[in-house]
Amino acid sequence: MSNLHVINQQVAFIVEVDKLKSVLRKTSPIGLNRLENSAEHSWQVILCAILFEEHANEPVDLLKVIKMLAIHDVVEIDVGDTFHYDKPEVSDLYERELAAAKRVFGLLPEDQGQACLKLWIEFEHRETPEARYAAAVDRMIAILINSQSEGGSWSTHNISADLILAKNAHIENGATGLWHKVQQMVHDTCAQGHISPKRQQS
Amino acid sequence: MSNLHVINQQVAFIVEVDKLKSVLRKTSPIGLNRLENSAEHSWQVILCAILFEEHANEPVDLLKVIKMLAIHDVVEIDVGDTFHYDKPEVSDLYERELAAAKRVFGLLPEDQGQACLKLWIEFEHRETPEARYAAAVDRMIAILINSQSEGGSWSTHNISADLILAKNAHIENGATGLWHKVQQMVHDTCAQGHISPKRQQS
Repeated sequence: MSNLHVINQQVAFIVEVDKLKSVLRKTSPIGLNRLENSAEHSWQVILCAILFEEHANEPVDLLKVIKMLAIHDVVEIDVGDTFHYDKPEVSDLYERELAAAKRVFGLLPEDQGQACLKLWIEFEHRETPEARYAAAVDRMIAILINSQSEGGSWSTHNISADLILAKNAHIENGATGLWHKVQQMVHDTCAQGHISPKRQQS
Repeated sequence: MSNLHVINQQVAFIVEVDKLKSVLRKTSPIGLNRLENSAEHSWQVILCAILFEEHANEPVDLLKVIKMLAIHDVVEIDVGDTFHYDKPEVSDLYERELAAAKRVFGLLPEDQGQACLKLWIEFEHRETPEARYAAAVDRMIAILINSQSEGGSWSTHNISADLILAKNAHIENGATGLWHKVQQMVHDTCAQGHISPKRQQS
């Protein structure tokens, strides 16, 4: 009976975070005329973390990285997805996301919920090898998708190459090889004329 | 340079399997009026594997389970998703999926591609604790989603409770506690009148 009670709490959490399938990001899947959702993004970033492990700057506990990435976006069911290039303007974002994390992980059995909350906070702070690598992969895939889509959301929202590189420079702290690939992709997208090299003066 | 060559192969694979975002399943996300795709399903099944680990019948290497689940559906970009209740009728399905697995994993650096192919085959054969648990979670989430959606694809395709239980009985081999929960969900959905208890005689 206790086992069933635990399963019921876990099921309630899974039902709640099923909503992540309707949280839309700014990017579109390659070749598709719709925005991607945060659930399919979460699969893709986990897949990348598995495949790119050898490129992490420091040895990482890959299982911990994956756990972080599996839950990193669930706060968006309360707060929505925030476009990476809008983040400096939303200064209370962390507090709102933390409140969401506490609410959503609070549906789980207490020990499991606390462990998830701790992992979520660790991911956000990027102070451990796992969090640095997870953040690097999370950003790398967004850049890869846009670079394969004629600039994608960068073109739509008029984001320049220098801003992309400035806002994603932390990739180098997690995976230097991936950072070099990112630089190449951004430069190629710029050379193809899909994005501007520099921010416009205002 | 060799590092970049490896990354380029991995990127080519990731770009190819991005197509999983347009492979549609028979189920719909809870409360949404669209079919779910195999990419968002893959995230959800990984999340479930993490959360339900304590319910696995045997100790499992959770990282291996997650790797299996992250790639278990990528063959569908060639073969499409097959409705679980249609599977006996498509006898060459395994051969077609295996050919797809060889093609898709062949895009990766050779060692990594071989490791993925091995994991995919292991998942399909359900002969190890990891494969049994991964298969149990994969089926459990499909049942959970339908049970939360007034029978969902079972109602649409006229699938009865006895057939659902017969076709998913292997869940018990991977996670007995989840199997008990599944039985409860199927019985509840039947009691609510969304599905029939038994197959119609033909």
